[in-house]
Amino acid sequence: MQTLVLVAHPHLADSTTQQFFKASLPATGVTYESLDAQETYAVDREQAALRQADRIILQFPLYWYAAPASLARWEAAVLTRTFVYGDRRYPLADKELGVVVTTGMPAQAFRRGGLENVTIDTLMAPLAALAHRAHMTWLPTMAVHQFNYLDETQKLQLVVAYQRYLTQSAPDTLANRQAWFAARLPAMVAKLAPKDRAIGKLITATLTQQADELEALMATLAMIKEQDDD
Amino acid sequence: MQTLVLVAHPHLADSTTQQFFKASLPATGVTYESLDAQETYAVDREQAALRQADRIILQFPLYWYAAPASLARWEAAVLTRTFVYGDRRYPLADKELGVVVTTGMPAQAFRRGGLENVTIDTLMAPLAALAHRAHMTWLPTMAVHQFNYLDETQKLQLVVAYQRYLTQSAPDTLANRQAWFAARLPAMVAKLAPKDRAIGKLITATLTQQADELEALMATLAMIKEQDDD
Repeated sequence: MQTLVLVAHPHLADSTTQQFFKASLPATGVTYESLDAQETYAVDREQAALRQADRIILQFPLYWYAAPASLARWEAAVLTRTFVYGDRRYPLADKELGVVVTTGMPAQAFRRGGLENVTIDTLMAPLAALAHRAHMTWLPTMAVHQFNYLDETQKLQLVVAYQRYLTQSAPDTLANRQAWFAARLPAMVAKLAPKDRAIGKLITATLTQQADELEALMATLAMIKEQDDD
Repeated sequence: MQTLVLVAHPHLADSTTQQFFKASLPATGVTYESLDAQETYAVDREQAALRQADRIILQFPLYWYAAPASLARWEAAVLTRTFVYGDRRYPLADKELGVVVTTGMPAQAFRRGGLENVTIDTLMAPLAALAHRAHMTWLPTMAVHQFNYLDETQKLQLVVAYQRYLTQSAPDTLANRQAWFAARLPAMVAKLAPKDRAIGKLITATLTQQADELEALMATLAMIKEQDDD
């Protein structure tokens, strides 16, 4: 999977959150681009990057409930009608479009009756509409609230969640999650100190073995649930 | 009522629609400002203009389901947290916020199952959230679809609809509409050719007289309807 991350942030280098994300990027398969680093956009090159990507991630802080201006600027320049509709050929069709949005408010503020009185999902409506029009697949939005209040454990979990959001097969099922971890474990084990490697291999073997058992259990569970729905 | 119209359009002079709106502005009570005409914003002056206005209108074409970049740029510069929250004094509180949005698609495209699969109302969620946070009153959005397909009569009706949107008391009740027209009729009649002035005065008198009768009828009707709801 090839993932293209387009970041809209007017002060990228000064943003602790954005620098954290940058340091958390998976080693391979991801192209990272700052939209604010460019005064004008090389439309052909931008469009080529979009064509080559399987998953396109728009990443930005929420500025008054929307993306910073550079995203709108990029859209207006790069997403020409001809490119998006492609004379009804839809060059972006079936690619995935995801959003990584950061906010300074707690998660519970974003709901009807909450302090912001609107959901993150509703605020992303313009981008979801774009995905719809371009025949793309919309990924559930990854929202990160109050990054600076996260403790070290939560930040480590965020690294994994972010990497999965960028590269794991959608939808985020148990099976896809399991496959994602299984594919990465051997390389991680290889990096362990020799004395820890045996335990690492044991964990990998157990995970793989459990995957098969889990699959059988899930099938049974789904069958039982379907009967419950009657 | 003082109305401030903030227009976001990167090619304002080339836009037939925007030039039409500009020519349709009421003669008094409205300040008009192009957000794209300014490279940077004089924050103090912009904030003063907002403080002086009773009604603030954001006017723009829909670019990929949102406002052009200049609106986000203006928001980021002018709507500082301190200004919007005012240390919990909310300087914009109770002012009205309205949107005049133009689109190239027909009205019926903007609904679930329609070509755009999303309502204009949902697309305006970020601006409505801003109004909510600033303790402002949100006006129903005025959407103008496919301006270039309107015939002369429709364009004349649009002039009136636009002027009412900018200056008529909210909500758009029969009484408020009647009052708006009644306030403007004498000046219009005065501009008529002498031979038509008598008829103009007769229309004005009839309108005023009907207003009283209508008010009585509306009260009766409301009473009947309330009983129906039981």
